[in-house]
Amino acid sequence: MKRSHRVGAICQILTEAPEKLFGLNYFCDMFSAAKSSISEDISAAKAAVLATGNGYIETIPGAAGGVKYVPDISPEKIRDVQENLCNMLKEERRILGGGFLYTSDIMYDPAVVKDMARIFARRFRDSGADYIATIETKGIPVAFMTAHLLNIPVIVIRRETKISEGATVSINYFPGSSERLQKMSISKRAAAPGSKVLIIDDFMRGGGSIKGIAEIVSEVDNEVVGIGVAIANIEPQKKKVSDYFPIVYLGEVDEATKSVTALPNCQIF
Amino acid sequence: MKRSHRVGAICQILTEAPEKLFGLNYFCDMFSAAKSSISEDISAAKAAVLATGNGYIETIPGAAGGVKYVPDISPEKIRDVQENLCNMLKEERRILGGGFLYTSDIMYDPAVVKDMARIFARRFRDSGADYIATIETKGIPVAFMTAHLLNIPVIVIRRETKISEGATVSINYFPGSSERLQKMSISKRAAAPGSKVLIIDDFMRGGGSIKGIAEIVSEVDNEVVGIGVAIANIEPQKKKVSDYFPIVYLGEVDEATKSVTALPNCQIF
Repeated sequence: MKRSHRVGAICQILTEAPEKLFGLNYFCDMFSAAKSSISEDISAAKAAVLATGNGYIETIPGAAGGVKYVPDISPEKIRDVQENLCNMLKEERRILGGGFLYTSDIMYDPAVVKDMARIFARRFRDSGADYIATIETKGIPVAFMTAHLLNIPVIVIRRETKISEGATVSINYFPGSSERLQKMSISKRAAAPGSKVLIIDDFMRGGGSIKGIAEIVSEVDNEVVGIGVAIANIEPQKKKVSDYFPIVYLGEVDEATKSVTALPNCQIF
Repeated sequence: MKRSHRVGAICQILTEAPEKLFGLNYFCDMFSAAKSSISEDISAAKAAVLATGNGYIETIPGAAGGVKYVPDISPEKIRDVQENLCNMLKEERRILGGGFLYTSDIMYDPAVVKDMARIFARRFRDSGADYIATIETKGIPVAFMTAHLLNIPVIVIRRETKISEGATVSINYFPGSSERLQKMSISKRAAAPGSKVLIIDDFMRGGGSIKGIAEIVSEVDNEVVGIGVAIANIEPQKKKVSDYFPIVYLGEVDEATKSVTALPNCQIF
């Protein structure tokens, strides 16, 4: 097999499984090649991946070491993603009654979700999170795609207890958007005590749901190490949580003039 | 830039965006290289991707043509995925009361979900589906990952109408697991009339929910072109839908002997 074929195959395999460690022997066996030859292939693969701007290949030294693909995103590309998202949010057709915007098509579109997940993965890759927590329903795709990029599982917090979740821990909380008490529940077997949790959701207004997630994971002895939301509403300016990371901010939705204000988060890193 | 670097970069870029068409000019501009040179690089990239067994690079001829990565999975790998899934389902610790099994950790684990999605993408890549429909909650990750591999959007059918979905169409239906009437609703703006729909879900017992999804998408003038479920219960043998494709079958869950029967679907293609 030619060097260029091996380099291409290594890039393909690593890209399919972000943050997964592959020992050099894996490639030696696959290509029936010597370790010295594979080492040179990996050097070339590193240069190749760097050239794409999509990430980099990291070498972990030692007997249990190997190589892994770490997704990345450039500041320019982040600005593109933010601008694209803001432009979509400003589309007149999205305006529903009561200041609500229709965003399901955005949150369920793999192309957009992958871009947002890449920003979250970049922001939280050193958080040490053991898993990602989200609350059903619209944030699940972006939470899951971020989990794919960080190679950790997701836990979906339910609004009602389900028999299929086994024993659950439940709390009541006040969501940001109304003062009606709501309930959320987490499966007791989902999260091992002592785990570190990254919270990812599609939207935050007052922060009530996110605060609820933080409370419920602390009830199962887990610690929140980061909060990412795709869209944060500017109002109310006083949120129930601090230290959250939004990709964009949503301002006024004016039904009369059919105008929507949306701004990028300029304090990305 | 060396050939091996360009080949690696092409493999990386195509793998990040399955089923997305890239014109040759994209790579010519990126690498400041001539079309003849890029054509040779793509030939090498084709050989590289084929060697991984993860898929292939397809060339679409013509002025609007280009190259795209099509994910694939070998029959041997499918059997591995099925065996792995069956072994997980047989774990004693999953047994809940009333014949239920705890499967959330499976359905929220990116590594397992990616494998299942790859089987669905392989099975339904020629279905002509415009989007994937699923019903909240546990099937969303596998539906979304399949959508990523097929490069089409997802529509999530909700159990309750939400203000953020805009105008909705709702139906009442009988789920397979009980004879209590339930409701599902779909956003009217989600699916364009005349669209073709692939239904993906995590689990099917009697097929009531899947039949409901088929009904609700026909109410918005969409046509079902395929049904994939990760796990189909063997009982009841008479389902409310025919022509569905399960990855594995779940048999008896015996609480007394702590045993679970799970079988691969041997009629994959």
